[in-house]
Amino acid sequence: MRHYPPSLITLIRQLSKLPGIGEKTATRLALHILKSSAGEAKSLADSINAVKEKIHYCPVCFGLTDQAMCQICNDPNRNKQLVCVVEQTDDMASIERSGSFSGLYHVLHGTLSPMNGIGPDDIRLKELYERVKKHNVQEVIIATSTNVEGEATASYIVENMSAMPVKMSRIATGVPMGGDLKFVDQVTLKCALERRYEF
Amino acid sequence: MRHYPPSLITLIRQLSKLPGIGEKTATRLALHILKSSAGEAKSLADSINAVKEKIHYCPVCFGLTDQAMCQICNDPNRNKQLVCVVEQTDDMASIERSGSFSGLYHVLHGTLSPMNGIGPDDIRLKELYERVKKHNVQEVIIATSTNVEGEATASYIVENMSAMPVKMSRIATGVPMGGDLKFVDQVTLKCALERRYEF
Repeated sequence: MRHYPPSLITLIRQLSKLPGIGEKTATRLALHILKSSAGEAKSLADSINAVKEKIHYCPVCFGLTDQAMCQICNDPNRNKQLVCVVEQTDDMASIERSGSFSGLYHVLHGTLSPMNGIGPDDIRLKELYERVKKHNVQEVIIATSTNVEGEATASYIVENMSAMPVKMSRIATGVPMGGDLKFVDQVTLKCALERRYEF
Repeated sequence: MRHYPPSLITLIRQLSKLPGIGEKTATRLALHILKSSAGEAKSLADSINAVKEKIHYCPVCFGLTDQAMCQICNDPNRNKQLVCVVEQTDDMASIERSGSFSGLYHVLHGTLSPMNGIGPDDIRLKELYERVKKHNVQEVIIATSTNVEGEATASYIVENMSAMPVKMSRIATGVPMGGDLKFVDQVTLKCALERRYEF
């Protein structure tokens, strides 16, 4: 890398900081940027700056937005009495892509993880409780991941909200669609059998 | 992707233009940039702009530099009578990394490829001939790739420079170091056998 000019090395170092990008990939990207037109490189640099300047969390659901409120919370067609709790903004995008949910979201921005020092005050739990109390929410669907932290967070939320007059539900666990049974792990298969449904 | 704010979508689109980066990876990178500090994002954007503003080709070897002449051409310790011809600037960096060459380089910025409309005038061949004539070069090592285009370019250069009083050589072909014979292709094995050397 030291055989490249200093400003190219700086760019390679900056790109290497991105997740999943090592020095080799960073070098390839940097050489591509160098070869692209001045306009294209400037657009990339400008869009990086714009993202940091414009985007902030929606004050209602803590999703990403560059408006006062996010487009989902603002949409009059969405069911405001149904709130889906997710860990991260990309989980919210995944559910939106499925096109199967018409309620609102609540992004926790993390899961409870005592081992890593992340307690109930470090994720957006208080805001969830307040929101449910204030806005006549009828059902809270907990769509945290089905790993240890996600399940623990789901249990914690259910326990803390048990006194509230709101229906609580959890996304289903089972064999993924198109999944081959022989590649499905034992815990998932056990869940799929226990939670089997009648035709 | 349409579930993200417009400025984030713009960044994702810009990142997707980079080689080997699809929409999923671009989304992951964009969300990382969004989460990183404002200073870090700005450094990345600034380094992209700096690369396009500062870096240009060295007028002697056509390698990359942000000075009047590149650091290799400027180095008084390098053997100026030995010129290694490579296809691209990253080939030059690869050879430099090996630490086994102390001469100068000449970057062609491509190979002859009549199928893609790339002829002798589209790569830095004239500049090579002039350089060899002017600067008392004693040996030209052709280190283009060992694929069809690279070999054709090497043959073309040797033919065109046959009248010049300069030694011409080609990098060796054979089994790569640490290579397992059963994974080596037949053409390479044939070359390795034909060009065997005595102990």
